Amino acid sequence: MSAETRVFPWPRLHEFCAGVFRHLGVPEAEARLAADVLSSADRRGIDSHGVARLRTYFDLISVGKINPRPRPRIVRESPSTATVDGDNGLGLVVGPWANDIAMEKAERAGTGWVAVCHTNHFGIAGYYVLEALKRDMIGWAMTNSSRGVAPLWGAERMLGTNPLAIGFPAREEPPIVLDMSTCAVPLGKIEIAVRKGESIPLGWAIDREGNPTTDPRAMIEGGALLPLGSDREHSGHKGYGLALAVDVLSAVLSGANWGPFAPPFALRQADPVRKVGKGIGHFFGAMRIDAFRDPDEFKAQIDDFVRTLRATRPTPGTPGVLIPGDPERTAQKERDVHGIPLLPPVLEDLRDISRRTGVSLE
Amino acid sequence: MSAETRVFPWPRLHEFCAGVFRHLGVPEAEARLAADVLSSADRRGIDSHGVARLRTYFDLISVGKINPRPRPRIVRESPSTATVDGDNGLGLVVGPWANDIAMEKAERAGTGWVAVCHTNHFGIAGYYVLEALKRDMIGWAMTNSSRGVAPLWGAERMLGTNPLAIGFPAREEPPIVLDMSTCAVPLGKIEIAVRKGESIPLGWAIDREGNPTTDPRAMIEGGALLPLGSDREHSGHKGYGLALAVDVLSAVLSGANWGPFAPPFALRQADPVRKVGKGIGHFFGAMRIDAFRDPDEFKAQIDDFVRTLRATRPTPGTPGVLIPGDPERTAQKERDVHGIPLLPPVLEDLRDISRRTGVSLE
Repeated sequence: MSAETRVFPWPRLHEFCAGVFRHLGVPEAEARLAADVLSSADRRGIDSHGVARLRTYFDLISVGKINPRPRPRIVRESPSTATVDGDNGLGLVVGPWANDIAMEKAERAGTGWVAVCHTNHFGIAGYYVLEALKRDMIGWAMTNSSRGVAPLWGAERMLGTNPLAIGFPAREEPPIVLDMSTCAVPLGKIEIAVRKGESIPLGWAIDREGNPTTDPRAMIEGGALLPLGSDREHSGHKGYGLALAVDVLSAVLSGANWGPFAPPFALRQADPVRKVGKGIGHFFGAMRIDAFRDPDEFKAQIDDFVRTLRATRPTPGTPGVLIPGDPERTAQKERDVHGIPLLPPVLEDLRDISRRTGVSLE
Repeated sequence: MSAETRVFPWPRLHEFCAGVFRHLGVPEAEARLAADVLSSADRRGIDSHGVARLRTYFDLISVGKINPRPRPRIVRESPSTATVDGDNGLGLVVGPWANDIAMEKAERAGTGWVAVCHTNHFGIAGYYVLEALKRDMIGWAMTNSSRGVAPLWGAERMLGTNPLAIGFPAREEPPIVLDMSTCAVPLGKIEIAVRKGESIPLGWAIDREGNPTTDPRAMIEGGALLPLGSDREHSGHKGYGLALAVDVLSAVLSGANWGPFAPPFALRQADPVRKVGKGIGHFFGAMRIDAFRDPDEFKAQIDDFVRTLRATRPTPGTPGVLIPGDPERTAQKERDVHGIPLLPPVLEDLRDISRRTGVSLE
């Protein structure tokens, strides 16, 4: 690690984030909630979605592009569903609010499903399903995001990385927590290759003409990420279809901007030329297990399934089969003890925010 | 096409299938329904799931492994959910029955979700979401299936090809109908390569040791298919996670056999050594659009999304971006006019069934 890399205990980063949000006019309880969601990403090892993004939240609230005191409201509902207008609030605040409604609906109707428009970047999708797991429910979370991914056979960025998460509770084993984007690899991997001057594998990206490329700069400079599956031969149409389904559930169902019209989560990027809805969109789901099956039986079977998968004969040169959520759990165990390492540019951003807000980082 | 290939109008194949099911003791209405589901696969160009499978249904009913007169029943329910025991019936009959319950639940509660155990192969997942589209709902369908796919970093078959389908209605444009397995390619592509003596691309399969292979026979002889995403570098953990989620929703939630213990859809394959539930499992969902948003607005936006995607600049050497469901619609248009071509081995199977049952094929 470079001399500039610093390690912080997560509660310190949490306190800092909450202080910054408060400084920006976010009410106390919501500032803490936003800090919960943000720091959960750092704790789980998903550095791209944690305090590294604080700068962008700070910028967008500062210039008035995100409302620090939103009054989200239900604009339509049925026994098992609701549609929420997030009043252009932080996704980190509107998301948990809408996710709670999904769980409350599930308490009464067996399942609850909430589509959200007029919202912004909501952190990691995994956060929301972990909340459902606390209530012994199966949790779902999705969001659309600004365009970066080409549909199969398209030469342009038309869809976001559109993540989806789903979590299933176990009894003695840890829960199954799938938290994945629907593209082949995240943008972060391309950026790292650019920084290191390395090439990238075929199947990650195309250049501006739509040709497969191993040059990460060719993706950055007008190219696009590829969907999960990469090319036709490896079923890139499936990853594209999943990204589209996430976009429809999150944005079309809720009345948000969909596909290439989702606004960027960045101050310096221009908004798309067309507006087809309000903000970006999320989609949350919660399912009560006892609406389907005895929860103890269900969880005992998940334990059994997890152990059965772990006992799979490993392929040569690998650690063997993991359970979705394992890498994040390993990171969290490590980071809750040893702290969260911040790279120099992130640290510089936080120090700058500290200077500008008077909120102490140290 | 070989001299042996024959083309049949789909109503002829439908009539034949219904006759065979009746001969096997399936009641009239259910025999027609099973034929509907089966022939929908042939019409949509998914030859692997249509009359080519009639032989296996025939075998399994004949030896008493599938119940021709099931009495499926709801074993647990809530306003938006139900769990169904399919009484070991044809998935082609139990599936539509359970899917109807999902839609009825949605009528009242906004959404409906039905997990099914003690059932068998249900044809194409796409059939069920097309039924939901007829009622102007968003439809979901999934099923688990017998093991053929390795989890990432595993050297053994542990999961099925576990398909999932989801459909969204449009107004003037055709609907978006995603119908995909969660593995990199279907077994059929491996079998075709064996027959032609060709190699397969890396990323489709591993051999019995768990090594990547380009030899299709190495997959057949104790190897495994790879999940969508193929290897770690291209996010094979995501396809594996999706396959696992489909398995849990279909089989663990319902009380069916999950993962490697799902019974095979074939007479000659031995049942797995362990039994962890009843039969295989399906999962159906239906969402009323007006539970979230004005349906006309929703459908107008889907039209717009579809047109926006079609207008994407194409990558060189491709026809450009398709909408999920396009290939199946093209096939159906063609086949409803020109008929359904049957390959010699399929034709031979049907002729054999015809001889044994007295049901006329011609």
